[in-house]
Amino acid sequence: MASESGKLWGGRFVGAVDPVMERFNASIAYDRHLWEADVQGSKAYSRGLEKAGLLTRAEMDQILRGLDQVAEEWAQGTFKLHPSDEDIHTANERRLKELIGDAAGKLHTGRSRNDQVVTDLRLWMRQTCTMLTGLLWELIRTMVDRAEAERDVLFPGYTHLQRAQPIRWSHWILSHAVALTRDSERLLEVQNRINVLPLGSGAIAGNPLGVDRELLRAELNFGAITLNSMDATSERDFVVELLFWASLCVTHLSRMAEDLILYGTKEFGFVQLSDAYSTGSSLMPQKKNPDSLELIRSKAGRVFGRCAGLLMTLKGLPSTYNKDLQEDKEAVFEVCDTMSAVLQVATGVISTLQIHRENMVRALSPDMLATDLAYYLVRKGMPFRQAHEASGKAVCAAETQGVALSQLSLRELQTISPLFSGDVSRVWDYGHSVEQYSALGGTALCSVDWQIGQVRGLLRAQQARIPAPAPQ
Amino acid sequence: MASESGKLWGGRFVGAVDPVMERFNASIAYDRHLWEADVQGSKAYSRGLEKAGLLTRAEMDQILRGLDQVAEEWAQGTFKLHPSDEDIHTANERRLKELIGDAAGKLHTGRSRNDQVVTDLRLWMRQTCTMLTGLLWELIRTMVDRAEAERDVLFPGYTHLQRAQPIRWSHWILSHAVALTRDSERLLEVQNRINVLPLGSGAIAGNPLGVDRELLRAELNFGAITLNSMDATSERDFVVELLFWASLCVTHLSRMAEDLILYGTKEFGFVQLSDAYSTGSSLMPQKKNPDSLELIRSKAGRVFGRCAGLLMTLKGLPSTYNKDLQEDKEAVFEVCDTMSAVLQVATGVISTLQIHRENMVRALSPDMLATDLAYYLVRKGMPFRQAHEASGKAVCAAETQGVALSQLSLRELQTISPLFSGDVSRVWDYGHSVEQYSALGGTALCSVDWQIGQVRGLLRAQQARIPAPAPQ
Amino acid sequence: MASESGKLWGGRFVGAVDPVMERFNASIAYDRHLWEADVQGSKAYSRGLEKAGLLTRAEMDQILRGLDQVAEEWAQGTFKLHPSDEDIHTANERRLKELIGDAAGKLHTGRSRNDQVVTDLRLWMRQTCTMLTGLLWELIRTMVDRAEAERDVLFPGYTHLQRAQPIRWSHWILSHAVALTRDSERLLEVQNRINVLPLGSGAIAGNPLGVDRELLRAELNFGAITLNSMDATSERDFVVELLFWASLCVTHLSRMAEDLILYGTKEFGFVQLSDAYSTGSSLMPQKKNPDSLELIRSKAGRVFGRCAGLLMTLKGLPSTYNKDLQEDKEAVFEVCDTMSAVLQVATGVISTLQIHRENMVRALSPDMLATDLAYYLVRKGMPFRQAHEASGKAVCAAETQGVALSQLSLRELQTISPLFSGDVSRVWDYGHSVEQYSALGGTALCSVDWQIGQVRGLLRAQQARIPAPAPQ
Amino acid sequence: MASESGKLWGGRFVGAVDPVMERFNASIAYDRHLWEADVQGSKAYSRGLEKAGLLTRAEMDQILRGLDQVAEEWAQGTFKLHPSDEDIHTANERRLKELIGDAAGKLHTGRSRNDQVVTDLRLWMRQTCTMLTGLLWELIRTMVDRAEAERDVLFPGYTHLQRAQPIRWSHWILSHAVALTRDSERLLEVQNRINVLPLGSGAIAGNPLGVDRELLRAELNFGAITLNSMDATSERDFVVELLFWASLCVTHLSRMAEDLILYGTKEFGFVQLSDAYSTGSSLMPQKKNPDSLELIRSKAGRVFGRCAGLLMTLKGLPSTYNKDLQEDKEAVFEVCDTMSAVLQVATGVISTLQIHRENMVRALSPDMLATDLAYYLVRKGMPFRQAHEASGKAVCAAETQGVALSQLSLRELQTISPLFSGDVSRVWDYGHSVEQYSALGGTALCSVDWQIGQVRGLLRAQQARIPAPAPQ
Repeated sequence: MASESGKLWGGRFVGAVDPVMERFNASIAYDRHLWEADVQGSKAYSRGLEKAGLLTRAEMDQILRGLDQVAEEWAQGTFKLHPSDEDIHTANERRLKELIGDAAGKLHTGRSRNDQVVTDLRLWMRQTCTMLTGLLWELIRTMVDRAEAERDVLFPGYTHLQRAQPIRWSHWILSHAVALTRDSERLLEVQNRINVLPLGSGAIAGNPLGVDRELLRAELNFGAITLNSMDATSERDFVVELLFWASLCVTHLSRMAEDLILYGTKEFGFVQLSDAYSTGSSLMPQKKNPDSLELIRSKAGRVFGRCAGLLMTLKGLPSTYNKDLQEDKEAVFEVCDTMSAVLQVATGVISTLQIHRENMVRALSPDMLATDLAYYLVRKGMPFRQAHEASGKAVCAAETQGVALSQLSLRELQTISPLFSGDVSRVWDYGHSVEQYSALGGTALCSVDWQIGQVRGLLRAQQARIPAPAPQ
Repeated sequence: MASESGKLWGGRFVGAVDPVMERFNASIAYDRHLWEADVQGSKAYSRGLEKAGLLTRAEMDQILRGLDQVAEEWAQGTFKLHPSDEDIHTANERRLKELIGDAAGKLHTGRSRNDQVVTDLRLWMRQTCTMLTGLLWELIRTMVDRAEAERDVLFPGYTHLQRAQPIRWSHWILSHAVALTRDSERLLEVQNRINVLPLGSGAIAGNPLGVDRELLRAELNFGAITLNSMDATSERDFVVELLFWASLCVTHLSRMAEDLILYGTKEFGFVQLSDAYSTGSSLMPQKKNPDSLELIRSKAGRVFGRCAGLLMTLKGLPSTYNKDLQEDKEAVFEVCDTMSAVLQVATGVISTLQIHRENMVRALSPDMLATDLAYYLVRKGMPFRQAHEASGKAVCAAETQGVALSQLSLRELQTISPLFSGDVSRVWDYGHSVEQYSALGGTALCSVDWQIGQVRGLLRAQQARIPAPAPQ
Repeated sequence: MASESGKLWGGRFVGAVDPVMERFNASIAYDRHLWEADVQGSKAYSRGLEKAGLLTRAEMDQILRGLDQVAEEWAQGTFKLHPSDEDIHTANERRLKELIGDAAGKLHTGRSRNDQVVTDLRLWMRQTCTMLTGLLWELIRTMVDRAEAERDVLFPGYTHLQRAQPIRWSHWILSHAVALTRDSERLLEVQNRINVLPLGSGAIAGNPLGVDRELLRAELNFGAITLNSMDATSERDFVVELLFWASLCVTHLSRMAEDLILYGTKEFGFVQLSDAYSTGSSLMPQKKNPDSLELIRSKAGRVFGRCAGLLMTLKGLPSTYNKDLQEDKEAVFEVCDTMSAVLQVATGVISTLQIHRENMVRALSPDMLATDLAYYLVRKGMPFRQAHEASGKAVCAAETQGVALSQLSLRELQTISPLFSGDVSRVWDYGHSVEQYSALGGTALCSVDWQIGQVRGLLRAQQARIPAPAPQ
Repeated sequence: MASESGKLWGGRFVGAVDPVMERFNASIAYDRHLWEADVQGSKAYSRGLEKAGLLTRAEMDQILRGLDQVAEEWAQGTFKLHPSDEDIHTANERRLKELIGDAAGKLHTGRSRNDQVVTDLRLWMRQTCTMLTGLLWELIRTMVDRAEAERDVLFPGYTHLQRAQPIRWSHWILSHAVALTRDSERLLEVQNRINVLPLGSGAIAGNPLGVDRELLRAELNFGAITLNSMDATSERDFVVELLFWASLCVTHLSRMAEDLILYGTKEFGFVQLSDAYSTGSSLMPQKKNPDSLELIRSKAGRVFGRCAGLLMTLKGLPSTYNKDLQEDKEAVFEVCDTMSAVLQVATGVISTLQIHRENMVRALSPDMLATDLAYYLVRKGMPFRQAHEASGKAVCAAETQGVALSQLSLRELQTISPLFSGDVSRVWDYGHSVEQYSALGGTALCSVDWQIGQVRGLLRAQQARIPAPAPQ
């Protein structure tokens, strides 16, 4: 029989080492992003080892200084990868050994890459979530500021993309801002579950050397420690949760983008994107395309694809660490990059968007007040179902005559219901219409102001909940 | 040109009504599940109308009594659907009118099916989440009880499905129980977001008749009210969140099922399913198959498919209500049914599973103590990296000689490192091995007990957070 | 220790039988749809057994007659399910035994439910694919007929939802029809892979009794036989493929629906849905909503969710039959039902849609001819890049002056380029513009006619490829 | 009001240019992979322009030489990107202009990036599919060769991961090889749909300058031309199809990987991975983990995630080109890279895998012959249902007595059925058992040989169908 690593049965040649397999296996191309977290984690662990008596204070100091130098090399861009550095943990420990010699070999005592990598990833994600929360708040604040400034602008509210009722433009802005506050709320909840220390779980069974996990937790500012070493090294809930958070958040943005793309068509004509967020055509000289919004809309697919992909990878996996879990990092890096760009571009779009008030007003039409006409009758005592029917008849009559609903004569209205009288003319005022919706959450001015206050209050409350970062 | 609804251009005949379209459009086949919630919501709304002066007290009482009768008919199974009842709202209002006459026509004043359906769905989901949380707690408790009872049983811990280190069987059970506590935690968070009242948002612009939404909230025991009427009637975050919650929870169960399927093979031989959760073969008389576990594993796909489907439906949708949102209900009904079954079957499997202790012990082998051999040297002062290498040499030597690692003579070990001495024999005790892992989260007895206490504490804390149901 | 099926450790009570597990395990609620295919398959198999000498001719005749009676009972709706009928195979064989006695016990010789169910499913799907192909052709034909009838109608072509160039309305219709021809092409390819006989594969190892699989194939009109019994009983490629086919097809329809929803807004005003495919609002009397199109658009999510779900179920599954595969049927039944409705409703929508020609023409604007202005210069010898720039300058000048591009004077144009002369006025003719696009695939009349011919030719060629059904 | 691109309402500062938007919009970071296809497409297009009289022969020659030099620079790695090169088309045309001057400005006449990019992508994908097909064939051939060489090896066949029936090891190999032949079949079908020329479709309306698309097709060796310019520039079926192809193919490999991971456990002990495809543990010296197989299994998630993502991006998109379509390229590049690695690593794994024949044989047990025992009775005339029951009783009796099924005495068997006689001893021969399965597709030697012949024949037939590449 052929040698262990030799070729047995056809296939391409395979020697002791298959270069395709080496590339397939290596993660350094992307997990190098974790260099800082890896150094932070190792510094805390060396303190834990010292307390447990596995390092002398001198050895610990040597390791801490060495790790600082490793970090410095990464920060300066002078860290040199070796061909054998298959991942960031191997690279950093290899370099540490070059810098400080044999003491480096004590750092990994009782630790496994299984608990190390997931500690690194949690540190990185905690910091990234704080950044993303900041960008999300910035977007929400921009929207709320704009809603406050433009609350006198009316335009058509649509359901089923058919004109429904007059609303305030600010009410539309706030509808998307409110959705985003759920995203910032959820992100804080996810971050809470990210902010749990797995270090000290070893490969599977735990740490056998009396390392004080509470000390590790405090060193790295984690909010809690994981409860079970097998779960700690193999669960990726916090990753999937973040990917799902991003999927839902960008789905919200895809809906806002869709609205703005429509509102920016020649046909709607309500808004105009800043040149900074549009691009031209290589063929058609007159075109100005809303590329920024289309890209935001499209990213919902990409981000969710990553969430779907990782969940499929996890499905049916035996418990504890399996190499399949290596798929987590590229997903989370790509999704966080995408979300960072999406949130910033959305903020830029909203903050520079021009609105065409005159087109907005012009798009309001009396048929959008058909519900108000029904309410008019309700206020005169008619049950709503009958009022709805009566108003429907008026809409029909206007259509048949080819006139606006507001142009039906009082006499004509009275053939539909004797409850109509001269004061019906007050119905045809769009400003009056929106002011009716004064129940909380409605489009009346007072309610819009209430919404602005509520959202601002929410953001203030959320700000108090951001977890502390790891000390340097 | 042909008449409005007639056939213009080829295609099958279409008259004024297309029966395929009617079935395609109707939701009564599934939204009838919401009958109770629909009645609860309408009762609260009629109280709101009365307070706003749109109903007299007598009209309100008439409506309340009528609605109680509608509910009674559903509960008794005597409610008769009419062909024109396209959805549960239409059906209930139609029946109410038959029962109480014209006053029924006042019930829908200022309300739209847009805010009505989402109120119903939230009521239904709040109740269902409470039920699912209960089933999940029952499963966790069963696991913790079992972990406590069997904590003296050792067996191999695997990583990459290769034997890694000896662990307690209870440590394995707890690894899955701990994962499930994250699910119950998340479910409570989702339920918080479900528990928000949208009623009073109308179709899009809000409620124009001064309905007091705080009163509606209190009537229905909701925790808060929605902030923006456009968002309230068209956001389905709470549905997608529940679908994702279920996806992650059943993915956890798929991993536990995979473990148990493996442990139940002839080759592993660690566990045996109760007959109640196995089935035979139509062809092979000797077969007993773990169908229950395979079905649990498979449901991860189905449940996640629903989550993926709804998110795709939402992507790029214009804001406010679009009929696309009708896809939410079948998804949530199917997923909740599936989760209910999955959780109950998992509880049944765990509570009746037999374990084969002798096979578990027999599967422990001295090579699983190679890490302990390295730690032995670490405790004698050797840096871990060297100790790891030395232990690796011992593994090699044993393999070459075809003996167990524990059978290497002291002399042979000493050729690898002079630090080995007679006390190395203590390494080969599996019980001693697991007791080393006494750091929090490890597999030592004290740590397993700590885990049990932690999980029980968590469940107690969660119990206080279940929201109140709607009053009858 | 407790009895085999008794309760060991907490959890709800479990006796010998868990009713939740029984429901969880049973498939009869949905696989009863396979009754006809199951009878067809069993009839063919009994012929195979007779030829192999395992049934006498008399026994075979008895079985065939019995199976015909079983089928008759299903067809008449008189078949009575027993509580023990967990699936359609068990039900039919149980009934057969009641009808003909012990000979029924010979039918399953050498057969397993593993090869039986997949034979049934393939038979059912082959027939359903033929039905779906017919509906798809009907839709395409309706579109092509309409394109032919309305090819004189011009309207704006959009890219990025911005007005781009004038095109024929028929060109738009054909763009969607052409996409659907790829779907009918793909469906035929999938059907080819469905049309392969697995019967005779047993549970895993094959058929040990000399059954002639070629005879079975011929009996059931399959196009080929499966090559490997392990693969045959456990691969569900043909199911996933159909689910993916449906996902892509309904994604095409979601794009067409999106276009029509936009074109049907007040703002675009190009089309109007028949009342048969619209619905009203419970609140707003003037509303007419394109529910049919929104539902079509939404189904893309549901259908794809099923595809995603099944693929996730299959991922990482050990080879051969596992109960997880039971998830295939509900997915395929639901998706086929959905596709059938979607295709019929789409055909109804297209065949009854009214178009507003005057609005279409009115939406054409001279700036959409900016590319033509550039081509004018190209034809006079200017390199395109310069011509594009010159036309861009003209667009700017017109915008600055607030006039239409066509209203710039010749003098003004000549300050941009001396190549402009009096014949530039011919550029401003929309009819002339579209006729330029005479290269194959363009929007000129000749090319539209060519497209119509090509699509009709494709459908004729596809018609010859539908596989034969199973004989009755 | 603020200037067009200035900041209006809060938010971060935005000048005329937002660098985040520029990065968000640019595709050059990944579409540079298309450089060769972009040059090929442009060369063909310049020939088309010359024939149409829009370029002189001299201009065409100049452009062709210039493009060759551009290609040379890419090939040599000397092509320098400019900051303004947002995509590969812009970069190549910019460089061409630097090389040959104004004539370069004629190249884009009548062409749009909309038809250009999709032509480039199809050229790239056609070539990549040919490469992937080659790798897939290599894998299949390696498997078939191995199946042929080891067809005398028996081992347990499993269903539900429970031992079912004895089978040939080669039968297992072939079950996966046969699945992969469907993948190579499907890939050829997808490649057929990739191999269609869109060039000459312009931005949306077609080509207005009489370019001969048949000439373009012939120049680039495409199999056909697209039928409709709107569809041609915006459909991405061919991309989604390839992503789905990859998803199904890697799902097949995930199932094979799962089998091999199980077979490679200490508990099964059937196979051993070459060192070249395993890795060690940073903590546990004795571990050798099947990382290669776990990575293959995991990639099913990633690849399918890309497919799901793109389909979600397409859902509900308005027709024709929208910037959302830019998401196609990274997906297809990543998936093709992944598939290339996965296929090569799988080939390496299979070709170097060692099998442990003795463990395989040892795992066969008499209870796996219970079906054969039933067939023994069937052959003596007992209906299968009764035989199945009788054999089940024998299994029970053996279990009760704690002996192997084969150790039941003839007398004991005869108490179950008088049909048992001395020749029952022949049942207990595993070799005899597998040889029964001689129907096509079974595990008998003749059928395994037939399978090998069939698969080899299929590959030969597929080889004739690879499309021709573009000429250099």
